[in-house]
Amino acid sequence: MSLFGGIEGGGTKFVCAVGSGPNEIIEEARFPTTTPDETTGKAIHFFKKYLDGPQKITALGVATFGPIDPGKSSPTYGHILPTPKAGWSNYDIVSALKKELELPIHFDTDVNGAALAEAKWGAGKGCDTVLYITIGTGIGGGLYINGSLSHGLLHPEMGHIRIPHDLSKDPFKGSCPFHTDCFEGLAAGPSIEKRWGQKAETLPKDHPAWDIETDHIANALANYILTISPQKIIVGGGVAQQEHILPMVHSKVLKVLNGYVQSEQITKNISSYIVLPELGNMAGVLGALALPIFANG
Amino acid sequence: MSLFGGIEGGGTKFVCAVGSGPNEIIEEARFPTTTPDETTGKAIHFFKKYLDGPQKITALGVATFGPIDPGKSSPTYGHILPTPKAGWSNYDIVSALKKELELPIHFDTDVNGAALAEAKWGAGKGCDTVLYITIGTGIGGGLYINGSLSHGLLHPEMGHIRIPHDLSKDPFKGSCPFHTDCFEGLAAGPSIEKRWGQKAETLPKDHPAWDIETDHIANALANYILTISPQKIIVGGGVAQQEHILPMVHSKVLKVLNGYVQSEQITKNISSYIVLPELGNMAGVLGALALPIFANG
Repeated sequence: MSLFGGIEGGGTKFVCAVGSGPNEIIEEARFPTTTPDETTGKAIHFFKKYLDGPQKITALGVATFGPIDPGKSSPTYGHILPTPKAGWSNYDIVSALKKELELPIHFDTDVNGAALAEAKWGAGKGCDTVLYITIGTGIGGGLYINGSLSHGLLHPEMGHIRIPHDLSKDPFKGSCPFHTDCFEGLAAGPSIEKRWGQKAETLPKDHPAWDIETDHIANALANYILTISPQKIIVGGGVAQQEHILPMVHSKVLKVLNGYVQSEQITKNISSYIVLPELGNMAGVLGALALPIFANG
Repeated sequence: MSLFGGIEGGGTKFVCAVGSGPNEIIEEARFPTTTPDETTGKAIHFFKKYLDGPQKITALGVATFGPIDPGKSSPTYGHILPTPKAGWSNYDIVSALKKELELPIHFDTDVNGAALAEAKWGAGKGCDTVLYITIGTGIGGGLYINGSLSHGLLHPEMGHIRIPHDLSKDPFKGSCPFHTDCFEGLAAGPSIEKRWGQKAETLPKDHPAWDIETDHIANALANYILTISPQKIIVGGGVAQQEHILPMVHSKVLKVLNGYVQSEQITKNISSYIVLPELGNMAGVLGALALPIFANG
């Protein structure tokens, strides 16, 4: 059995794991995201013991917050691109890891990793086109399409699409520093908190916040459906985990699409079309592990 | 040299061609789209002379208006799905052609065909992710991604995404029978005509119509960029061919994205990133021809 290493590089914590799949994790470590050198140093220390011996890993997957440059022929391949995350702009994380670990490295966004892991092992099993959306501190999307992860020019930034914003129903103007009332600016956790003066997780189920929140989510998901035509949409992140959210989203997506997309998976089975992740709080690091495991499809 | 047949099935006309690429077209025929049997009958008649002999075709590509079912394992594969186009709902065009011509048939949307032809022979040459959008009587998009055409659940219906609609600037409420003010409902040719009481092609360059039209196009293209991250966007269809349109779209897309997508192809070279098609009025039928030619990548 081949073993692999995975690093989930999050904005607040890094998770490292060694294994070969969801039920074959040998060791896991979690530590807070501090400076690039310190954080990467801890990851290197963790993996050093797996460079030789019977538990030797053969490749490393790195799935991080973005924006990143995943383009192998690009001069800034392997870098975190300019980011509001202090100290991390232009950090060449792939070179830093490669120098110390001398392993093949597979580098992608955290959301692409999660899309891949869910497509191979989780809620998207059997589908060749899976959209993974996370709605939490920010909103991001990973796209597994035609059986592989998508990058295109750089990588998608789906959280920043613009959606209709009915100011008479939702007068909050939006909080994205780039686009004000894009999807993330209207619907990410910090926007909910700013709009209502309390954290999303403290709002009761019958609070009007959720009607507005699910309006925005439904408009965005309908746009993704129309643009990408995914076979499965998996909604991760803290906001969507509240159990009353997805049922509201299901009925609103149907209303927005209004019968236009003639697929029974939408018109009859939407509750098994837009779903929660199956890999739970391991989705992130499993996403990183999945990158080398499925590098060839 | 292998020869192929292509059928561009449009809402108003069908175009048939035999050849092997843009500069190798042996014969072409155009006829109006009438009933399914009559129209398909004319196509069959055209191709019958190419079933034997030195100019024998080995496969047929069919790229038609939608919605269609391109899913090979679906019970309605090869059908036109329910459509406002009278007489064509649920028509099994692939079986009708196959019965008379006994050729392998490659079936896709007209816009996917155009995306493939432009990616292989036209403005998207060298890119692995190309978005083709047509803005005319309707608005549709074809997606060549990671080196192949995308279908997912069915196929994209990108013209129907929802975009911000500032009623104080554009009080026209939209004309899509399904979604009222989706992108198509705001920006397709018939919407321009309804909004201003005259056909788009008769409006002068300095008419306020174009400021509103390019607002809508820029919002939609920005959403596609954020969702798909294409390496090239090719804008076909009558509306975008007016030469003052794309330059207005370029500057507005930059404004909407506001520097968020950190790629020089956008930030520095947008006029070579969002471009017109290169295959001109042959794009449609070349799209059909491209389907069998590039069926294996």
